[in-house]
Amino acid sequence: MFLAKIIGTVVASQKEASLEGLRFMLLQPLDEKGKPVGSHVVAADAVGAGVDEIVLYASGSSARQTVVTDKRPCDAVIMAIVDSWEVGGDQRYKK
Amino acid sequence: MFLAKIIGTVVASQKEASLEGLRFMLLQPLDEKGKPVGSHVVAADAVGAGVDEIVLYASGSSARQTVVTDKRPCDAVIMAIVDSWEVGGDQRYKK
Amino acid sequence: MFLAKIIGTVVASQKEASLEGLRFMLLQPLDEKGKPVGSHVVAADAVGAGVDEIVLYASGSSARQTVVTDKRPCDAVIMAIVDSWEVGGDQRYKK
Amino acid sequence: MFLAKIIGTVVASQKEASLEGLRFMLLQPLDEKGKPVGSHVVAADAVGAGVDEIVLYASGSSARQTVVTDKRPCDAVIMAIVDSWEVGGDQRYKK
Amino acid sequence: MFLAKIIGTVVASQKEASLEGLRFMLLQPLDEKGKPVGSHVVAADAVGAGVDEIVLYASGSSARQTVVTDKRPCDAVIMAIVDSWEVGGDQRYKK
Repeated sequence: MFLAKIIGTVVASQKEASLEGLRFMLLQPLDEKGKPVGSHVVAADAVGAGVDEIVLYASGSSARQTVVTDKRPCDAVIMAIVDSWEVGGDQRYKK
Repeated sequence: MFLAKIIGTVVASQKEASLEGLRFMLLQPLDEKGKPVGSHVVAADAVGAGVDEIVLYASGSSARQTVVTDKRPCDAVIMAIVDSWEVGGDQRYKK
Repeated sequence: MFLAKIIGTVVASQKEASLEGLRFMLLQPLDEKGKPVGSHVVAADAVGAGVDEIVLYASGSSARQTVVTDKRPCDAVIMAIVDSWEVGGDQRYKK
Repeated sequence: MFLAKIIGTVVASQKEASLEGLRFMLLQPLDEKGKPVGSHVVAADAVGAGVDEIVLYASGSSARQTVVTDKRPCDAVIMAIVDSWEVGGDQRYKK
Repeated sequence: MFLAKIIGTVVASQKEASLEGLRFMLLQPLDEKGKPVGSHVVAADAVGAGVDEIVLYASGSSARQTVVTDKRPCDAVIMAIVDSWEVGGDQRYKK
């Protein structure tokens, strides 16, 4: 999984029928200091997360192991909202 | 999933029998500003998308979770046509 | 999937029993202009392709969705020989 | 699999129900000399590893092949604690 | 699959129970000229390969399609020992 910030939303009305009802969020992956790193990813939301929240997302077939993404053509899913993380005993982020 | 623009098409008549009827599109991935980023990808089309459209594509085993790609040797699929996306409340793209 | 040119062959007689009979080809991925891009990949051949041909290959679990690679420890497969592709209405490659 | 050092922990109380009880660790991948390389990864812990330990982690669907991660939306798992490794007959790391 | 040289071994006694008996090898991926390229990978050995041998390894779920890795949290496997390869008719490597 990777840490990411939800920076936006994507709207797509013409899509594979099985995707109906899924919300697509635009994610900016973060490094362990909370700084942006790498390219954006579009992920389905499985936990009711909102813009500006810090989340964990899973990729690949693991992204289909949630109730909302099961058997859907979806390769990235927000599966947790992050409360905090620490590195070497120092809290680097707290919600 | 990633945002991409359909920039072209690929024709391949000699192929695995199961791929018969699939349309292969050449995609240029886009960043969150709509600018080209990274290398092209060839994806099967599951939504009737055309050249110059902005789409979402899924990769890996998730690319086989559509009616047209099920159990096919296909690792990328266009699963939605994008209407719009926004970042930080600003609309960055509208069809 | 990605576009690639078959640049060579790999011979391996001591291998997992299930791989017996598979041909391993050395691929050079190509960009949308037909220029070499990125690192080589070794792929199994599912379509009778030969050295110097331009092909499409699929990766990951999708590489096992062919008759010859089913349930084999094989993560890349040549699943089509490319006839042509075009970008923006211009033919960039024709066999 | 890749070598990594556990550099921290991630707390997420609002998550997919199936993830309840999993511990999320922040990993810094290491090169063969034990130096940091590449971006951090968040992995579930399947072996009772702790901060500062050197571990092996597996990614993708393989990350779900442990008792604690089975059928969970989890794409990286710590599946072993490293005792030592050697390169060219020289021990590069010993716990 | 990718070409690689086995450069070392990794010992891990505390691990997921299902991994008991697997040998972990440290691999240096090679380019088509046999030169080191990219980061090391740790792979399970399915063919009785030894240090300094040139091998092919498969990644992802395909790494679990061998007798020794079936249903194990293992995402890379050595599935063949390379005898030789050639590029453009020139032999680039012979065991």
